[in-house]
Amino acid sequence: MSSTKSQVRPGAYFDSVVLMQLQRNLLTLPGVEDAGVVMATPANLELLADSDLLSNEGKSAKPEDLLIVVRAAKAADAEAALGKVDELLKQRRSSAGSSFRPRSLSAAVKNLPAAEWVLVSVPGRYAAKVAHEALDLGKHVFLYSDNVSLQDEIALKQKAVKKNLLVMGPDCGTAIINGIGLGFANRVRRGSIGLVAASGTGLQTVTTKISNLKGGVSQAIGTGSRDLKSQVGALSMLQGLHYLAADSETKVIVLISKPPDAEVATRLLAAAHQCSKPVVVDFIGFAPPAAQIGNLYFAAGLDQAARLAVDLAKQPASKKAETNHLKGYLRGLFSGGTLAYEVLNGLQLFLSPIYSNIPIRSEQKLETTLNSKAHTILDLGEDEFTVGRLHPMMDNDLRLRRMKQEAEDNEVGMILLDVVLGEGAHPNPAGELAPAIVAHRKLRKEREFVALVIGTTEDPQQIDEQIRLLIDAAAIVFRDVSATVNYIAARLSQPIAAAETLAKFSEPLAAINMGVESFYDSLKAQGAQAVQVDWRPPASGNEDLARILEKMKA
Amino acid sequence: MSSTKSQVRPGAYFDSVVLMQLQRNLLTLPGVEDAGVVMATPANLELLADSDLLSNEGKSAKPEDLLIVVRAAKAADAEAALGKVDELLKQRRSSAGSSFRPRSLSAAVKNLPAAEWVLVSVPGRYAAKVAHEALDLGKHVFLYSDNVSLQDEIALKQKAVKKNLLVMGPDCGTAIINGIGLGFANRVRRGSIGLVAASGTGLQTVTTKISNLKGGVSQAIGTGSRDLKSQVGALSMLQGLHYLAADSETKVIVLISKPPDAEVATRLLAAAHQCSKPVVVDFIGFAPPAAQIGNLYFAAGLDQAARLAVDLAKQPASKKAETNHLKGYLRGLFSGGTLAYEVLNGLQLFLSPIYSNIPIRSEQKLETTLNSKAHTILDLGEDEFTVGRLHPMMDNDLRLRRMKQEAEDNEVGMILLDVVLGEGAHPNPAGELAPAIVAHRKLRKEREFVALVIGTTEDPQQIDEQIRLLIDAAAIVFRDVSATVNYIAARLSQPIAAAETLAKFSEPLAAINMGVESFYDSLKAQGAQAVQVDWRPPASGNEDLARILEKMKA
Repeated sequence: MSSTKSQVRPGAYFDSVVLMQLQRNLLTLPGVEDAGVVMATPANLELLADSDLLSNEGKSAKPEDLLIVVRAAKAADAEAALGKVDELLKQRRSSAGSSFRPRSLSAAVKNLPAAEWVLVSVPGRYAAKVAHEALDLGKHVFLYSDNVSLQDEIALKQKAVKKNLLVMGPDCGTAIINGIGLGFANRVRRGSIGLVAASGTGLQTVTTKISNLKGGVSQAIGTGSRDLKSQVGALSMLQGLHYLAADSETKVIVLISKPPDAEVATRLLAAAHQCSKPVVVDFIGFAPPAAQIGNLYFAAGLDQAARLAVDLAKQPASKKAETNHLKGYLRGLFSGGTLAYEVLNGLQLFLSPIYSNIPIRSEQKLETTLNSKAHTILDLGEDEFTVGRLHPMMDNDLRLRRMKQEAEDNEVGMILLDVVLGEGAHPNPAGELAPAIVAHRKLRKEREFVALVIGTTEDPQQIDEQIRLLIDAAAIVFRDVSATVNYIAARLSQPIAAAETLAKFSEPLAAINMGVESFYDSLKAQGAQAVQVDWRPPASGNEDLARILEKMKA
Repeated sequence: MSSTKSQVRPGAYFDSVVLMQLQRNLLTLPGVEDAGVVMATPANLELLADSDLLSNEGKSAKPEDLLIVVRAAKAADAEAALGKVDELLKQRRSSAGSSFRPRSLSAAVKNLPAAEWVLVSVPGRYAAKVAHEALDLGKHVFLYSDNVSLQDEIALKQKAVKKNLLVMGPDCGTAIINGIGLGFANRVRRGSIGLVAASGTGLQTVTTKISNLKGGVSQAIGTGSRDLKSQVGALSMLQGLHYLAADSETKVIVLISKPPDAEVATRLLAAAHQCSKPVVVDFIGFAPPAAQIGNLYFAAGLDQAARLAVDLAKQPASKKAETNHLKGYLRGLFSGGTLAYEVLNGLQLFLSPIYSNIPIRSEQKLETTLNSKAHTILDLGEDEFTVGRLHPMMDNDLRLRRMKQEAEDNEVGMILLDVVLGEGAHPNPAGELAPAIVAHRKLRKEREFVALVIGTTEDPQQIDEQIRLLIDAAAIVFRDVSATVNYIAARLSQPIAAAETLAKFSEPLAAINMGVESFYDSLKAQGAQAVQVDWRPPASGNEDLARILEKMKA
């Protein structure tokens, strides 16, 4: 039978790289079958138990304790291995060990004043405090640490926005700033594609694919995985978007995230839609409204995001047409249910609040279909309207009455109609709709009528003649849904004031690293200037003592 | 002051086209300001009130009553107009009026035995009964009527599947069978693209776009909007899919729907993935897992669905590689959270049940992350695993232990790993993973190891060497997520037995129309053989009497 021996070091802090190396070194000692070196959290204790490494002594350790376990065939070997722990801990292999290591962030700043960046990868419970300190010293923060509270994230990001600084993270695994990777980052070509991502491996995957497709990256900015939650409101992604929009080296912007909260997606996409560069959007698990809406390109997955970005970067920059803002609400009166749904699916990203009798989200439900409210999309072919009545594709009566009602509402700035031609449909819909448009335009001159026409030249209604009638009535005619959504979004969405843009990141990059030493090593390997702070938890990790010290300071 | 006069005709049934014409004709009579001719449902009464057309007499009408209202400046004009109603009702303009009109479906079948199709657009409350009758006579049903219960829909479709017949609908607006449009349908080119749609205007929009892009349609099959609800289980769409898969004229298949219920999407996409033709999927409001997974092409919106289908139809048919079914469960052990998420997002469409510590749907949540269950995707970089421990991109210890655990489970047929290279990551991950793969393959020879490798040739780990190590260990290596998902889905998803395929639809098309007469007119205008049934509700719409008659029959 094997023997398992444990050592508990209460409140002891070591860099995770050091702990990994210790575990590996223990495994090489005589007779040792397995070893574990972990902070004694419940999850880690369960994992040790799974590997048959949990003794009674281990079970009694606390989450802030360092637990070292060795299993050997002979008890003596296990004991001997544990006896070597201190010696093994002294064998540091990181190059940081050999260079000067200031003990505090403020000392590091004095040592490397050019550093605009602080990388923080200390354990989660200390990370927010360290990040606040970095912001107070006027530094951008790359916050790799996870297990940081949402409250702390919000406080940090709000402070950063006020100071015109950027907080990437918490739980930000990767970024590439001026060609230098922070945290985990692939070596990729430099170029004209700028990325902002709330997803670490998402960003790594897309940047590597861009590089493998012979495209290049200007900046790759991480935000941490919770940035697009409604509580955080995409503060970092909006900063990144505006930075890249103003950056002369960036031609194409890519936004990557796991599914954002709905109202955050709306704000972000409205801002991206008002930007003058093409923006590739890959919100994984998010239902895209179309393949393209104006300058927005919706990608399905990381592969396509990279491919789209590289293709767009090859195209000459197109000058975006200026669109004036039109005041008032949209009222969409549809005969086609799916057209109504698809238009709503697109416009909900740009217009808010928007209501419908076929809501996609519950808060969009109209209280009564008889009265519109704010922006409204109505499907007049819904079951409730078709009892003993012809479908609105055949009979325009219901729609003409509703158009009149909407036109008498002074808050209505735009009325949208679909005109679906074909067999079975009304023989001349434009012949009835166009005169109504002319009459209603007289009520308010600046009001616009938009028509989405579906049909072929073989259809019995003669599509060219139908379109001519509508254009003669001064309606704006589209032939597909995404162009319709793009036009309406550009005309009616509220202009978004860009946040004050971050100053251009300085080159060459210089950074201060606090935490995982291998991040320092890789900064140096990439030729960046860097300083490693010899960070230790307050009171050596003894939280009771730390609290007393904190009180004495105050 | 104007005068509003009403006439209530209890339980009177007229075709909706006739009612529309009556309303229009009333408007042309002397002194008439407005008129309404509707079934007196609550919704219709509200609409009348909105147009100032609801009198006290109208308010007391019942939903099954026909209500005729006229408003005129002078009471005498309103009265005179109402006096002309019977005369106006006799002025039928439909061509159906002049030809022979059998009074029953069975009589119509005798009159046109070649008819394979019955179009049903009688009022919703009578429609299910008529459709059952058509199925019992061995006919496919195009069920335009809405306001049919979900229960009736399920019963009809289950009966149809048993009889190898198709029910399109209820609430099916459109179809194109052998070049002839049923219901609302555009005149489009014939060609090699076959469509099945749970969305009427969706189908119209995509077929018109295909035609406008110079593509062509083989068959366009409607299913009704509720076919992809879990209660119905896509019975009609599966029939349509298998019909088109077997149809020699169809080269590319397009599936269109508003968002399907999750488990229905899974069954449908697994079936589509096993089909040998390219399938374009446009599930509006559905988050696509990738742009392409094998033969499945995910479109974002109707415009892109049409464009993809036309492009694919131009390409030479590629022979699909046969994939043998591999027995056992998948265990995905990821270091990259977004890679895990994207793989889960794709595989959940093909493998069921599937569990994860980062579930996309609540039922996917693992009870404990320490033990896998059925197919499992684990993100080993989640917060719970990284307290006082290096991220699995830097330290393979946790993953190697988990691989061993999974390999000891005889139900495991495939183990999937991501290998993310780059700065900050482990210097030689394959050097540690490959020997473990070799060791674990010995436990069960037919077990497969799949690796998804992310990186560039500039990365410090030397990607070519990493891939060589993995391949030497007999791992199957992919470089992007969608190819990985495609391979695993093909290997592990249960082969789906195709339902017995419907017999080829006969040409030329012949159909029996029951309900809206203009559908008969348009069949004739397209050159199809057709018969209009002079359908009347049982007991002239008097439901009490109808019940008595029904009892007497039994």
